[in-house]
Amino acid sequence: MDERIREHADVLVDWSARVEAGDDVVLSIGPGAHDLGVAVAETLGARGANLHVTYSSGEISRAYLHAHDEEFDTTSSHELALLEETDVFLSLGGGRNTSAMADVPSRTRQSYSGARTDVREARMETRWVSTIHPTRSLAQQAGMAYEEYQEFAYDAILRDWESLAAEMERMKTLLDEGSTVRLVSSDTDLTMRIGGRSAVNSAASVAYDSHNLPSGEVFTAPTATEGEVTFDVPMTVRGESVRNVTLAFEDGSVVDHSAEQGEDVITEVLETDDGARRLGELGVGMNRGIDRYTDNILFDEKMGETVHLALGRAYDACLPEGESGNDSAVHVDLITDVSEDSRLEIDGEVAQRNGRFRWEDDFDG
Amino acid sequence: MDERIREHADVLVDWSARVEAGDDVVLSIGPGAHDLGVAVAETLGARGANLHVTYSSGEISRAYLHAHDEEFDTTSSHELALLEETDVFLSLGGGRNTSAMADVPSRTRQSYSGARTDVREARMETRWVSTIHPTRSLAQQAGMAYEEYQEFAYDAILRDWESLAAEMERMKTLLDEGSTVRLVSSDTDLTMRIGGRSAVNSAASVAYDSHNLPSGEVFTAPTATEGEVTFDVPMTVRGESVRNVTLAFEDGSVVDHSAEQGEDVITEVLETDDGARRLGELGVGMNRGIDRYTDNILFDEKMGETVHLALGRAYDACLPEGESGNDSAVHVDLITDVSEDSRLEIDGEVAQRNGRFRWEDDFDG
Repeated sequence: MDERIREHADVLVDWSARVEAGDDVVLSIGPGAHDLGVAVAETLGARGANLHVTYSSGEISRAYLHAHDEEFDTTSSHELALLEETDVFLSLGGGRNTSAMADVPSRTRQSYSGARTDVREARMETRWVSTIHPTRSLAQQAGMAYEEYQEFAYDAILRDWESLAAEMERMKTLLDEGSTVRLVSSDTDLTMRIGGRSAVNSAASVAYDSHNLPSGEVFTAPTATEGEVTFDVPMTVRGESVRNVTLAFEDGSVVDHSAEQGEDVITEVLETDDGARRLGELGVGMNRGIDRYTDNILFDEKMGETVHLALGRAYDACLPEGESGNDSAVHVDLITDVSEDSRLEIDGEVAQRNGRFRWEDDFDG
Repeated sequence: MDERIREHADVLVDWSARVEAGDDVVLSIGPGAHDLGVAVAETLGARGANLHVTYSSGEISRAYLHAHDEEFDTTSSHELALLEETDVFLSLGGGRNTSAMADVPSRTRQSYSGARTDVREARMETRWVSTIHPTRSLAQQAGMAYEEYQEFAYDAILRDWESLAAEMERMKTLLDEGSTVRLVSSDTDLTMRIGGRSAVNSAASVAYDSHNLPSGEVFTAPTATEGEVTFDVPMTVRGESVRNVTLAFEDGSVVDHSAEQGEDVITEVLETDDGARRLGELGVGMNRGIDRYTDNILFDEKMGETVHLALGRAYDACLPEGESGNDSAVHVDLITDVSEDSRLEIDGEVAQRNGRFRWEDDFDG
């Protein structure tokens, strides 16, 4: 077995999920993630955890959903019972076709998803972590050769997480102590209030309220957004290619928008509900192991020298006890490259310029 | 998709497991059984069942068991909770290597199995059915080409089960009403008492107390065995090839045994406990879709024109309420070909001669 697969398993089990002896673990495996599943099972065995292995296949979900009538009105009480007794939920993504469910109507998906709210919430109560095994299908989506993609993925995943967490803590402190953030570049000048909110140091570990591997971002929940922003990182939103989206904010809400490509899908997102016109997240990508866009949000939003903003729902982890953040049925991330002609100010002081942070040697304040 | 896969799925869901709308179903899929999994998911969707998909991989189990210390002293409470809420458990066997767990020490397996007694018992309380998807690895074990094995497997699985169940009911009636059975062939003359026991019409459906697909046998729990029997169907017992086992019984227990090959493993089985020297099962194979041995007990023991006997544990389904049958830690089936020079008598009357049953046109009473 490729030694990187074993290292990935160890990072996932020990750093990310903090598995201990006697933990009841669910290991969810995609059809292309078998080898990582073997390595993770080995690590879980060595830690003395209890193992239940599930299979997450787009083809199986598609067949089930197509055949089912559109009413999903009964609860999967067996799955709910499983998750209510689960300590750790590890999802190993990676299939053979990222479009395996392309022809399932969104109405069917929504109905199914709605019927599974309690199952999903029970899963969120566990120490859950999502990662991917680099498959040929993910390489294809990224436009890369298979071995090239493996190197890319492991560069992102096999970081020195302890050291990155320490660096990200600096950004968290700046955001926690700050009142306003301003993002400026050639076609962007946006201000947001962040006072009273807590940033999450998303260091790819449940110990940091972080549930993705890779991770490597610091994010908070902004309010009172004013100004204009352009997102120059190409993305896929709801199956549509989106390029160079521009949003104009007044009093915290989007009042104008345009896009070079995919404007319709952005319009659709904005019209979901009132919260969809406000920001739920400001995130600073700090994982320099991720050095290019691969059209996979798990990687793209953590890329070093990018900043992302999400329309819609805010994360509770950023909010003071008792305060509710922006509420919406959607959470759509959009990303902008800040490596050139760009600065991020917190309370008027530059925290990041042209991708370099205040504490870095080559920072040009 | 091969239409036979869809037919297999329909037989499994409708005939075997009697799935109804709202049933909580666990679908356990082997690494080579994905395509059957897709077809079964489609049928389950159409029936309105709730679906939880698990992954049963020998490689994953091996990795977990090798890495674990040998004490499995904590219960998988999450898996137990799942199974206690499960109505139907469907196991789709079929991997890529039937020897995937060959190097896991039997002591480790036993320790793991012991710690999972409650999980196993909960599964047995569901409407469980085990079947296989014909894989290349199973074809190899059977010594067949892949397409040849597919035809073999579907001939066994895609029977007219209703009609076979009706035919098997005749054999069940003979066994239920009989007091003694005598099996005679060139090197066998064995008598058993069956009075007071109930035969199971194992028609591949939970409605018949039958949990295998394919099935096609009628079995009961004999006592007071006397005489000699030779099993001429080659088998693998605990990883060892076994050929032409001969057992001599007195007062219901084995008093002498020999084998052309694998005698040691038979000795080991017999020495397990007192019950291992007595018979737990007399079974009559009635599935003529199975026309050859494939070294897979799921198929071999149901083969038409064979009779099998099991050393060890009897099934509760054969026993009158309140009576306990032969008890043992083992249940090892051994098979004899009855297609030639052979007869099965019940209370002195021939029920089967040279493979033909009393009710068949070509029966030569």
